[in-house]
Amino acid sequence: MAVEPFDVVDLIRTKRDKGALTTAQIDWLVDAYTRGYVADEQMAAMTMAIFLNGMAREEIRDLTLAMIASGETLSFEGLGKATTDKHSTGGVGDKITLPLAPLVASFGVAVPQLSGRGLGHTGGTLDKLESIPGWRASLSNEEFHSQLRDVGAVVCAAGLGLAPADGKLYALRDITGTVEAIPLIASSIMSKKIAEGTSALVLDVKFGSGAFLKDIEQSRQLAETMVALGKDAGVATTALLTNMNVPLGFAIGNANEVRESVEVLAGGGPSDVVALTVALAREMLALAGQPDADVEAALADGRAMDTWNAMIRAQGGDPTAALPVAKETHVVTAARGGVLVEQQALPFGIAAWRLGAGRARKQDPVQHSAGVDLHAKPGDTVTAGQALFTLSADEPERFDRALEALEGAYRIGDPGEPVETGGPLIAGRIE
Amino acid sequence: MAVEPFDVVDLIRTKRDKGALTTAQIDWLVDAYTRGYVADEQMAAMTMAIFLNGMAREEIRDLTLAMIASGETLSFEGLGKATTDKHSTGGVGDKITLPLAPLVASFGVAVPQLSGRGLGHTGGTLDKLESIPGWRASLSNEEFHSQLRDVGAVVCAAGLGLAPADGKLYALRDITGTVEAIPLIASSIMSKKIAEGTSALVLDVKFGSGAFLKDIEQSRQLAETMVALGKDAGVATTALLTNMNVPLGFAIGNANEVRESVEVLAGGGPSDVVALTVALAREMLALAGQPDADVEAALADGRAMDTWNAMIRAQGGDPTAALPVAKETHVVTAARGGVLVEQQALPFGIAAWRLGAGRARKQDPVQHSAGVDLHAKPGDTVTAGQALFTLSADEPERFDRALEALEGAYRIGDPGEPVETGGPLIAGRIE
Repeated sequence: MAVEPFDVVDLIRTKRDKGALTTAQIDWLVDAYTRGYVADEQMAAMTMAIFLNGMAREEIRDLTLAMIASGETLSFEGLGKATTDKHSTGGVGDKITLPLAPLVASFGVAVPQLSGRGLGHTGGTLDKLESIPGWRASLSNEEFHSQLRDVGAVVCAAGLGLAPADGKLYALRDITGTVEAIPLIASSIMSKKIAEGTSALVLDVKFGSGAFLKDIEQSRQLAETMVALGKDAGVATTALLTNMNVPLGFAIGNANEVRESVEVLAGGGPSDVVALTVALAREMLALAGQPDADVEAALADGRAMDTWNAMIRAQGGDPTAALPVAKETHVVTAARGGVLVEQQALPFGIAAWRLGAGRARKQDPVQHSAGVDLHAKPGDTVTAGQALFTLSADEPERFDRALEALEGAYRIGDPGEPVETGGPLIAGRIE
Repeated sequence: MAVEPFDVVDLIRTKRDKGALTTAQIDWLVDAYTRGYVADEQMAAMTMAIFLNGMAREEIRDLTLAMIASGETLSFEGLGKATTDKHSTGGVGDKITLPLAPLVASFGVAVPQLSGRGLGHTGGTLDKLESIPGWRASLSNEEFHSQLRDVGAVVCAAGLGLAPADGKLYALRDITGTVEAIPLIASSIMSKKIAEGTSALVLDVKFGSGAFLKDIEQSRQLAETMVALGKDAGVATTALLTNMNVPLGFAIGNANEVRESVEVLAGGGPSDVVALTVALAREMLALAGQPDADVEAALADGRAMDTWNAMIRAQGGDPTAALPVAKETHVVTAARGGVLVEQQALPFGIAAWRLGAGRARKQDPVQHSAGVDLHAKPGDTVTAGQALFTLSADEPERFDRALEALEGAYRIGDPGEPVETGGPLIAGRIE
C-alpha cells in the first residue's frame, strides 16, 4: 500500500477553520479523489467548507490546474490560425453560440466550441443543434481537427477525457447543495476551457432571475475570478456581464431557437440576440487580432450564413431541411391592453422545460419541437386579446404544468409604468 | 416508490444559507439517512453546514429526539429505585467511572452505566475493566436488570439498538472533519443517554489540552446545551466543567487505572481523582434525592469497595486476581532538580496510546498492561535523577514513538515559578 502524503481529514479541518490549502495539498486532494482514495462524503464536507469559507485566488488557481492535470489536454498549435472560444454561464433562450461560432469563423478564426447538454431550466447547445435532421454532436479527433481547419467553426460534445476530476466533482456538488460557490464554478468552467487548448476565451457571465447567480456583484466576482484564471494559464480572456432577467430573443426551446439563430445569420432576428451576438463576436475577434472586424457586415452579406451552412453540413446536418414542429400548441393572449412591463426569464425557462424542451435527469431525451415562442417583449404595447406567447408540445397534457410555472411571470401595466428588465443587456466588461 | 416529503438538497441549502430546519424536516432527514435514502455525501455536506452555521436550540432538540426515535429506548420504571447516570466527554487518565459507579450505588441508587471503548488518545471504560481477569462487558437484558436491582452498579457495553442514527452519523463525522461541532456532540451524547431511560444524569464536561474541546467557553456552551436537552426530555441533568490540561491521577492506561481506582475505593488514591469522584458522586446523589449523603464515609469505611467487588463478580470478574503487568518498562528521570511546573495531558495520552493502551482503529485490540505511570504531579519538588514517570509496554520497540510524543510535554522549573495547570480542577457547574 502506497503511503499517502496527507490525511484528508486534516485538509478538511484546515478549510473548515478558514485556513488555506497548499498547492501540494490541492494536487493530492484532486488526484486522490479522482482515483477514489478520498471518498465522496469527504469531498462533500470539503466542498461545503469551501462554499462557506471560500478560497484564496492561489487556491482557486491550484484547484483549476489540478483538475486540468486529472485528464488529457488538447492543443491547436499545428492549426496555423488563431483559435478563440466562448463560454456562457447559461440562460433562458441563450442560443448565442449558434449564430456566433459561424460569424466569428467567417473571419478566418478557428472557433472550437466544445459544448454540453441542458439540465434543468437552461437549455443545451447540443440539444438545440440536434433538432437539425442528420446533425451529430460526436466527432472523432480527426473530424474535429479537419473541420476546424476547413470550416473554422465546430460545435460538438466534449469528450470525457478533459478534466475528469471536474466531471466527478460537479456530479457530487449537484446532489450536495454546493453548486453555487464561486471558487468551484470558476475552477469547473476554466479547467475544461484551459484543457481544451484555446488561445483566447470570451466569457458571457449572466446575472438575474434566469441565471445561475442572481446577483450582479456575485456574477462580477465570478467573471473576475475566471478572467484571472485564464490569464494565469496563458489564455487571453475577457468577460461580459449580461442581463438574464428577461429571456433572450423570442424563442425558448430547441428547434425554435435554431430558427431564430438562422434569422440572425440572415441579417434579421431579435434585437437583443443580435446585439449580444455582435458584442461577443467583437470581443472574440479582438482577442484573435482583428479588433476592427466589421461584424455586422458579415451578418448582412451572408458570409456568416455560408459558414453556418458549411458547419452544419460538415457534421452530417441538412441546413435546408424542415425543422420539427410540435403536434400541439396553446396560445396565451393578453387579458387587457397596455404595456408588457414584466417577463421573467426563470419561469419561462421552467415552462419550456416542462413542455419537454429540457430534461430533469441526464439520461432523459428532449423533445426538439417543444418550447415557448414569445410574441411580445417588455416595453411592447399590447391590445386585449392579442397573442402574448405560444406553448408548443407533443403531449397536450404538458400545458397545464407549464402554465402553472408562468403564473405571475409576466404583467401588463399602464403606459408610462416602469418596465422591469433589470437594466441594460450588457452591464459590464472585465478584462 | 414512496414519495418523499422533502428534497435533501433543499434542506442542505437551507442550513448552508443559515436557515433553520423544521421539526418535520429534521425527523425526515434522520429517518431518511438511517434507511439510506439520504446518501453519506449529502449528510456530510449537511454536517459541515451545521458545523459552520450552527443550530438553534430547537433544532438541536429535534435532532436529539429524531436520533432517539431511530432505535429502541430502555426504561427503569419497574426497578423500584432511583437511577442516575454519569457521562464524561473523555480525558487522559479519566477512570472516574470505576470508583464512582459503586460509590453511588452503595447508597442504594441504581447506576446503569452504558459505556464505550476508547478511540485515539482518550481511554475507554470498558477497555480498562477488561484488564480484570474474567470480567465481561456484554450482558443480556435480564443480566443487566437483575444486576442493577441486586448490586446497583452496572458498567457494560451499550447495545446497538440505542439511537442507531447516532452511530451512523458519528462514524461519518469521524472521517469528514465534523466531530467538534457543539450541536452534533450534544445531540450525539444526549440521544444515547436519554434513550437509556435514566431519570437523572450528571455530565463531566472537560476542557483543556487533553479534552475534546480545548476552550472552556466552548465546553460551557456544550454543557449548557446538554443540560437543556436533558431537562427538555424530563431527565434531571447537571454538569461540572472540569480541567483536562493535566492527566487525572498518576495512572494512564488500563490495568494501572484499575489499580488506582481500587486505591480510591480503599480510601486512598490521588487527591484529584478522589476530589472529582466525590464531587460527581454528590451531584448524582443529590439528583437521586440524597443531597446530604456522606460520600467520603462510604469510601473510608469500605461500603463503596464492597459494591465494587459485587459489581465485578456479577460480571464474571475476580476482584482479587492479579492484574496484568507489562513485559518491559522504561523509566524517565529528572534531568535537573526543581519544581515540576508543566505536565500536558494530550501528549501523555498519546504516549499511552502509542504504548498499546489505546487503539487507532475500532477493530484493533488494546494491550491492558501498557501505559504510563506518573511519579510526580505539577507543583511537586523533584531532585535530579528522580524518576518522573515509567512507560510500560509488551513491545519495547514502542518506547521510542511514545518518548517522541512526550518531547516538550513536561518541564522542571525553578521554585516560585508559576505552575501551569490551567486553573482549578472543577471550574464550573451548570444546572
